[in-house]
Amino acid sequence: MGLEGRPKLFEVRVVDIDLHRNLIIMNTSDARELGVVANNVVLVTLGDKSAYATVVTSETITQPGVVALSKQTASALGVSEGDKVGVKPVGLPASFNALKKRLHGGRLSEGEMKSIIRDVVDGVYGEAEIAAFLVSQLYSELGEEELSYLIKAMVETGSRVTFEETVYDVHSIGGVPGNSKVALLTVPIVAASGLLIPKTSSRAITSPAGTADTMEVLARVDLTMDEIVEIARRVKGVLAWGGKLNLAPADDIFVNIERRLSIDPDQQMVASILSKKIAMGVERLVIDMPVGRGAKVKDASTADKLAGLFIRQAGLLGLSIKVALTYGGQPIGTTAGPALEAREALEALIERKGSRSLIDKAVLLAGLVLELSGRAQPGQGEDIAREVFLSGKAYEKFKQIVEAQGGNPNVKPDDIQVGSHTFTLSSPLEGAVTHIDNAAVSLIARACGAPYDKGAGVRLHAKVGYRVNKGDPLITLYSSSASRLETAVRLLRDLNPVVVEGMLLKTLP
Amino acid sequence: MGLEGRPKLFEVRVVDIDLHRNLIIMNTSDARELGVVANNVVLVTLGDKSAYATVVTSETITQPGVVALSKQTASALGVSEGDKVGVKPVGLPASFNALKKRLHGGRLSEGEMKSIIRDVVDGVYGEAEIAAFLVSQLYSELGEEELSYLIKAMVETGSRVTFEETVYDVHSIGGVPGNSKVALLTVPIVAASGLLIPKTSSRAITSPAGTADTMEVLARVDLTMDEIVEIARRVKGVLAWGGKLNLAPADDIFVNIERRLSIDPDQQMVASILSKKIAMGVERLVIDMPVGRGAKVKDASTADKLAGLFIRQAGLLGLSIKVALTYGGQPIGTTAGPALEAREALEALIERKGSRSLIDKAVLLAGLVLELSGRAQPGQGEDIAREVFLSGKAYEKFKQIVEAQGGNPNVKPDDIQVGSHTFTLSSPLEGAVTHIDNAAVSLIARACGAPYDKGAGVRLHAKVGYRVNKGDPLITLYSSSASRLETAVRLLRDLNPVVVEGMLLKTLP
Repeated sequence: MGLEGRPKLFEVRVVDIDLHRNLIIMNTSDARELGVVANNVVLVTLGDKSAYATVVTSETITQPGVVALSKQTASALGVSEGDKVGVKPVGLPASFNALKKRLHGGRLSEGEMKSIIRDVVDGVYGEAEIAAFLVSQLYSELGEEELSYLIKAMVETGSRVTFEETVYDVHSIGGVPGNSKVALLTVPIVAASGLLIPKTSSRAITSPAGTADTMEVLARVDLTMDEIVEIARRVKGVLAWGGKLNLAPADDIFVNIERRLSIDPDQQMVASILSKKIAMGVERLVIDMPVGRGAKVKDASTADKLAGLFIRQAGLLGLSIKVALTYGGQPIGTTAGPALEAREALEALIERKGSRSLIDKAVLLAGLVLELSGRAQPGQGEDIAREVFLSGKAYEKFKQIVEAQGGNPNVKPDDIQVGSHTFTLSSPLEGAVTHIDNAAVSLIARACGAPYDKGAGVRLHAKVGYRVNKGDPLITLYSSSASRLETAVRLLRDLNPVVVEGMLLKTLP
Repeated sequence: MGLEGRPKLFEVRVVDIDLHRNLIIMNTSDARELGVVANNVVLVTLGDKSAYATVVTSETITQPGVVALSKQTASALGVSEGDKVGVKPVGLPASFNALKKRLHGGRLSEGEMKSIIRDVVDGVYGEAEIAAFLVSQLYSELGEEELSYLIKAMVETGSRVTFEETVYDVHSIGGVPGNSKVALLTVPIVAASGLLIPKTSSRAITSPAGTADTMEVLARVDLTMDEIVEIARRVKGVLAWGGKLNLAPADDIFVNIERRLSIDPDQQMVASILSKKIAMGVERLVIDMPVGRGAKVKDASTADKLAGLFIRQAGLLGLSIKVALTYGGQPIGTTAGPALEAREALEALIERKGSRSLIDKAVLLAGLVLELSGRAQPGQGEDIAREVFLSGKAYEKFKQIVEAQGGNPNVKPDDIQVGSHTFTLSSPLEGAVTHIDNAAVSLIARACGAPYDKGAGVRLHAKVGYRVNKGDPLITLYSSSASRLETAVRLLRDLNPVVVEGMLLKTLP
């Protein structure tokens, strides 16, 4: 029942206005005549290009016959001021019945799933439809076939890149503070072993630092796809931000809504990771799945279920995969926050030692990649990777990567600025650290300003199992803002993330 | 973890821009400094007034230090150009944890439900959160207690009115074309019997006409609350549009999203109806629930379940209620569309006869109101109501209502303009009408232009059970646009809404 026929023509003005979606400002009378109201979506066309845009109405900003397009919309269409564009109301989105089917418990075919993802990426859908699609998964999980259709559709609606040799990658599902720095060791170990690992990663969503945030302390991470391809060819390893590469762009739209609703359906997480990797040309992949109290995955049975999802989907998509369940019960290494973690990683690379939770994990994951490649026999990868790390070849490779990405390869750990406002909490008693709360550490580091304030974060002086004396430092907070530090200290006192227990629990009068 | 402290002050400009939500246009640098990005929500304050608004960023529209507020936002705050307003980022919405709890299967307390509805009404939530709340109900129904909290919260977050005498009302859950005119008979019958019935109703959402659309053909329906109170006191009956009266405003927000997603959770429907009625001061209510093929409620067991929800909730809220399950298997009366229905209702009132499905239904519902009031013994209401109708008192009362609402009380059916472009479909064979498809009739009448084109709609010449000869007219379409009529005729041929079956099904060669 869509209103068929030729679109009405309007003269274009371009306005500098951003609402994180395509906008078209129309005179109220034009909108009425077109049969649309504010917040409806219309199709704007110029020649053979078209873009969907949300209608904003005004009595005065644009006169009848003229529409104002946001810069984003104008650039999607390649229009300039004065051009004439066609504007047409959009009836029901092509995938409307498919979405309705899913909301009412039906299973989606490959075509239906693709039509939904196409409408999501094209901006035909508003937040309500996207939230409905995601929330439905909390109650009615995607079937394995539906999930594979979802992943394929997410890949097909974005850019894809191919490399001449086999592409390897390691990806952590995250959830543990301090984890962002692991890739700064793993990637150079793998690349130094001669394998291609053009790693793209995200910025932090709920953690104090993502790998992209941490690497950005040392080099550029906002590389173009051409730069990534060139560096990968030359250096083998890349540590780039994947945000603007148009890899599975539906994922960014989904993640934004998931974050707002604080939901994270398992199937959607698998789709998010695998779609980005496939779009990046990855053929052999190691998934790091931290398991433990305060991690995303709390226990072994949940981990097995999720790992099964990854493995079966990878199989359907022709991807070789290994899933490593790693210890995620406390932070990785001793720091959380971009600059602090960059410093810790650099120290480890230079000195070839450091926190076991950092080095053992990096070596373990790199070893699994080596096994996937056939360069190491099953069970031998870790030893080979450790050798590459200890030999200094990993550090050499890391310097090449930093240099290729426009950073200073000779930067020293002490050159890295951390927040000048600090606060250290000491142990109130003699005893042992029995627990460090991941979520509390993340919240406190973020309250300090991480990841936006690169120098903000926390350093742990003791980890689980360490013996401490009364007055020994437990945790130091860093921030470049005194007022942020103050807020973080209040939070530290409320949340008490580092638990010390002695033999004596309490004395009574 | 919200950023505490004093809001930053900005000079105000007012812009005429509408996106169906409060907007604030900020310079990108101001937004960055405030720690917000486009599409975030901020709290805007002036003195003791405050409003939430969605951030639009621009490099050029507003210079640093100046914000542009949409007219809607400015009027919510009572600000003028040049005033200084405070702007503060909003951390997590107050009800964020409550929403999260619901999405993860928890039951909401009264306080939690209230905080969600408050955030919905205040505009703290975007479409994603509202969709999540509604979609969760498809899978995890609200419990009876949660539902009563929801209804109370929806009432408390809007305006309420009280009358000096007991307020009665009749409300149809809808879903059957031609139903909008029933209230044009019921309300005057009840009012002529001396009972107060200040009926507010909605415009059509998916049907060809709502009662407000149909009444608007004869009189003003966009009355203020003061006008409604005054007319009710004087004439006893009112037929007004409830859209701008701020009655349970959360409902309008929910309905908008439900429509887009094509979902209609039962509990939410019950909340929608009861909250608006309680806000309007209604104490005794008759619910009309059409049941049948093509109606909202398809069968008796679904009807019983829904009726039970209404009855138990009314009990919890101190409302006397009767639910009438009525025949909804085909359209009511012979017309669908605002002007056509207004004409049919007026003819029935003047001539005291007409379609049985119209008159019997109106009399039945009015009779139930009389029984709820005690003016009729159980089982006797219908007879008394019919007497009021046949005596002409209902028509006299209707004229008073039309006059009080600014219409011409002496208007005659033939004075009412209907669409000048018409098309009549004739029966292709001799036989009997065995089915009329409600949904198809609605779609065709809407394709003709109803409800926006008041004269558009359909007239049925035969209804289920009528015998027709080959060539007899079955249905006539009306529109004021030749091209719309053409589209509707195509649809009519596709959907074939009036099914005629003869004895002879087919001849073979």
